[in-house]
Amino acid sequence: MSTYTAPLRDMQFVLKDIAGLDEICALPGNEECSVDLVESILEEAAKFASGVLDPINRNGDQQGAVVKDGVVTTSPGFKDAYQLFCETGWNAMPFSPEFGGQGLPAVVTMAVNEMWKSANMAFALCPMLTSGAVEAINHHASDELKQKYLPKMVEGVWTGTMNLTEPNAGSDLAAISTKARKLDDGTYLVTGTKIFITWGENDVAENIIHLVLARLPDAPPGLKGISLFLVPKFLVNDDGSLGARNDLICASLEHKLGIHGSPTAVMSYGDQEGAVGYLIGEENKGIGYMFTMMNHARVNVGLEGVGIAERAYQHALWYAKERIQGAIVGDKSGEKKPILHHPDVRRLLMDVKSRTEAMRTLAYYAAAQIDKAHAGDAAAQARIDLLTPVVKGWSTEQGVELSSNALQVFGGVGFIEETGAAQYYRDSRITTIYEGTTAIQANDLVGRKLAREKVPGAGMKAMLAEINATADELAGNAGLANIAANLKNGAAALTAAADWILANYNDKPQAVHAGSVPFLKLTGIVAGGWLMAKSAGVAAARIAAGDSDPFYRAKLATAEYFATHQLPFAAAYAAEVMGGAEAVFGLAEDLF
Amino acid sequence: MSTYTAPLRDMQFVLKDIAGLDEICALPGNEECSVDLVESILEEAAKFASGVLDPINRNGDQQGAVVKDGVVTTSPGFKDAYQLFCETGWNAMPFSPEFGGQGLPAVVTMAVNEMWKSANMAFALCPMLTSGAVEAINHHASDELKQKYLPKMVEGVWTGTMNLTEPNAGSDLAAISTKARKLDDGTYLVTGTKIFITWGENDVAENIIHLVLARLPDAPPGLKGISLFLVPKFLVNDDGSLGARNDLICASLEHKLGIHGSPTAVMSYGDQEGAVGYLIGEENKGIGYMFTMMNHARVNVGLEGVGIAERAYQHALWYAKERIQGAIVGDKSGEKKPILHHPDVRRLLMDVKSRTEAMRTLAYYAAAQIDKAHAGDAAAQARIDLLTPVVKGWSTEQGVELSSNALQVFGGVGFIEETGAAQYYRDSRITTIYEGTTAIQANDLVGRKLAREKVPGAGMKAMLAEINATADELAGNAGLANIAANLKNGAAALTAAADWILANYNDKPQAVHAGSVPFLKLTGIVAGGWLMAKSAGVAAARIAAGDSDPFYRAKLATAEYFATHQLPFAAAYAAEVMGGAEAVFGLAEDLF
Repeated sequence: MSTYTAPLRDMQFVLKDIAGLDEICALPGNEECSVDLVESILEEAAKFASGVLDPINRNGDQQGAVVKDGVVTTSPGFKDAYQLFCETGWNAMPFSPEFGGQGLPAVVTMAVNEMWKSANMAFALCPMLTSGAVEAINHHASDELKQKYLPKMVEGVWTGTMNLTEPNAGSDLAAISTKARKLDDGTYLVTGTKIFITWGENDVAENIIHLVLARLPDAPPGLKGISLFLVPKFLVNDDGSLGARNDLICASLEHKLGIHGSPTAVMSYGDQEGAVGYLIGEENKGIGYMFTMMNHARVNVGLEGVGIAERAYQHALWYAKERIQGAIVGDKSGEKKPILHHPDVRRLLMDVKSRTEAMRTLAYYAAAQIDKAHAGDAAAQARIDLLTPVVKGWSTEQGVELSSNALQVFGGVGFIEETGAAQYYRDSRITTIYEGTTAIQANDLVGRKLAREKVPGAGMKAMLAEINATADELAGNAGLANIAANLKNGAAALTAAADWILANYNDKPQAVHAGSVPFLKLTGIVAGGWLMAKSAGVAAARIAAGDSDPFYRAKLATAEYFATHQLPFAAAYAAEVMGGAEAVFGLAEDLF
Repeated sequence: MSTYTAPLRDMQFVLKDIAGLDEICALPGNEECSVDLVESILEEAAKFASGVLDPINRNGDQQGAVVKDGVVTTSPGFKDAYQLFCETGWNAMPFSPEFGGQGLPAVVTMAVNEMWKSANMAFALCPMLTSGAVEAINHHASDELKQKYLPKMVEGVWTGTMNLTEPNAGSDLAAISTKARKLDDGTYLVTGTKIFITWGENDVAENIIHLVLARLPDAPPGLKGISLFLVPKFLVNDDGSLGARNDLICASLEHKLGIHGSPTAVMSYGDQEGAVGYLIGEENKGIGYMFTMMNHARVNVGLEGVGIAERAYQHALWYAKERIQGAIVGDKSGEKKPILHHPDVRRLLMDVKSRTEAMRTLAYYAAAQIDKAHAGDAAAQARIDLLTPVVKGWSTEQGVELSSNALQVFGGVGFIEETGAAQYYRDSRITTIYEGTTAIQANDLVGRKLAREKVPGAGMKAMLAEINATADELAGNAGLANIAANLKNGAAALTAAADWILANYNDKPQAVHAGSVPFLKLTGIVAGGWLMAKSAGVAAARIAAGDSDPFYRAKLATAEYFATHQLPFAAAYAAEVMGGAEAVFGLAEDLF
């Protein structure tokens, strides 16, 4: 039986040598952070992930959350694990000390969150949603609401949710029809049905703080007429104690392909007189506030791609070392060996390992930009703006493919549920959908982040200049010349495709959007390939300096794999973008 | 609610204009076949698929087969549907008239089988396994066994299975340990456990005829010591009536990711005195006989990739026309339209449609080679040998990707089981594993079918010459120049990769096998792209001749899509084959 072990060595390498942990710890406000402290935090988190969250992951799949008369019972072990999670302070880790948090940099939270996602993705969704809600309240709510709600949410005693989707308003938030009306006392009554509410009802928290998008009677139509409300499950008295049950109920839970341990609720607000809600910020500005939460959540969902691929990799690797089957091609001894020795099993595992490392590096690098931007670095802000849809879209698309590759390593037993590989395959499939589908991310990338930038294409061009500089720098090192050449080709493909989008965005918006998903994958491969190449550069320098840590040899190998097996696809995606748009619309609707 | 409708127009086009149905009907032995007859057979099959098999497909998923004390109860409706399937003669269709079959060409069976697989893949596995068993018995068993077993199996009253896998013998059949010993009366007693036996036990058939691989006491080790036995569930008296229950039992059914309607049995032989079996052919030649069945089954499993992608496409298309969500980018009216109008939904659907058509064309084309080879055409035999692993490996890998793309069209509801998209995604996942994983197919392709051919590479070179000829022919037609250019590039990539394999197979077998799966995908894309280009050529000629059937415009559009969105990937796969082998082995085992 395989168990999860956090890949601490790689995490630390990425944090220190690529994301610049030192530099982040030196930023104002991060005074308490140090490389040593982070190391011990990661070690403790690794223990919690392996010891507490991993063992209940399969329970969560096999005995998912259930609802009866509006009362949700979570999977066996989840409630105790959540209590321990909060008691040991993990829930509070990312938040501001002002409300009881530990104020650790985003880059550290990123590494710790990866562990939660690997060990138990369904469980990890609960603190992730709370975290998004805390951020939205902290940025946009009144001091009164902050003081009343944040300390308990930071501690984790109360959880948070985000309520966007309705049956007729999915990707199209402008269609939201949940209603709110203002009462004389300044509070609001909310009425409507929300669907796909992650951890929308549960038995792990004393109270649940719903952030709900709704429309006031006199609001303008569309996105500009949506307001954000804080709607607690139990009303909160002035002394902080819990008051009456609010008029909201979990009408049902969805029967899903995966993440069975995460209760996905249909929430009904105001079946009686209306659910009491409190306006966050100003009226009709809810969509903007919600995006605070969404951008945060998008990077975190991208991280689910990393986490699930890492877990699936470890599981498949365990089997590939354990399972003995057949003689190895080209081995004259005819000896039967573990299937890790079979070339295609080796390829599958290298594929999962190398691409997972690339995704991890990009995600932590992106988190470092969040920390720098937070300290006022405008270039870092531009970079995280550019990379948010890439981390979300590319890493989740990869996560689905890689959990499938990991399943393939098992052969027939991979298809049997008891093996566990199928769970990762099923769980991963939601990640390209929620928090904005891959297309939504891709449209954000080609639109706001590229063609509609203040200086169109500036952010992408700045990154490409750095990528080309890395390629040039590495080209002189014989051992890295192959990586450098492949990176250079990838960068050229990305440059050409980006230029094509910039040239056509205004006149042919449909053609540009027809290639937005291939463009997103192209960007992910080149950005990931860049950071893997940088990693190889660091590894080669350490080896040249006499460091015998085998980790550096391994990093050279996974970077070489990425360069020779992933970067060649950049040109194909660029061809789709530049040469395939018309073909997407080549068929009239009635001929489909 | 979407229901399945057989894509008759495309099926007929491929049969007539690409697979050469006319020519096949004119072959000796096919005298009764005619284009008109085939047309009415397809129409009747389409009705059966939509009217009988499709409606019980979800039952099969939600209430899978169950076992109690060795007795299997299949999903609701399956037993009645199977009875009707046999009564209306569908089971008998592909078989020799000698035993009650209708002796239709393989190419016709292929089209009809696609419908069964689309409508209900779990159900369709039952006749597929019977069909493989009939073929093995017909080719290799004694006349006595044929006379006794085939008529009932052809009729479908008795079903057939293939028993290869054991807990320690999966891809490595040489490890088979099930035992057989000969009795004085010439029969054998079989003892052992077989796993993953599709439809190994069921309540739809009066008797089940197991073909079991087992080892005689004095057999040589490895693959050369395995014999094939016919082991019936009930012994059959000389008058054809059923006798005693044989000593075999279904020990359990697997709990699987998908195809819940197909009972996947653990079969236990000889718990008491030994199960009575009858030798098929000669002792120790079982593996060769089993390959008769396997090659047949491999093309048929490849067809599952086509069938499931077609069904997933229809389902997603139905939703994309039904679901209204958001204004369309670039549409100044701001009108909300069905999501089919959103560029990325359009791309996803074009992707599934175009690639499904390419797979269908390749599968039917391959079946036509079976018919021609059957009539003594050596070139056709070489072509089907080459294409069998490609149809199996490429189409199933595509089926998994395309059912995922179809699910993506649904957004959030795609992840909800009630929607049905998740079933196709789950069902499809077995297809790259059973009947030989994609790696097994790919190793067959680079080995027996390329480098170890009598004249190494001759079959591939012959196909490439035809592909280049098609590209040259179409290049003169302005409307097809883009398709021709992309095909030419694809063919160049395949040529280079094939040459590399031929040059390195003997000296670097591991390096070649490390790239075998990318090479298989490369071959599939180029062969599929070739036949789509040929299809476009036919369509363009018909349009030029004044034919206004919109089908031809649609075919031009899907061929253009395939050329601009799939053929560019050929170069990337070739790069993996030629430039990535060392990277696959770059990591020492202890560094994984």
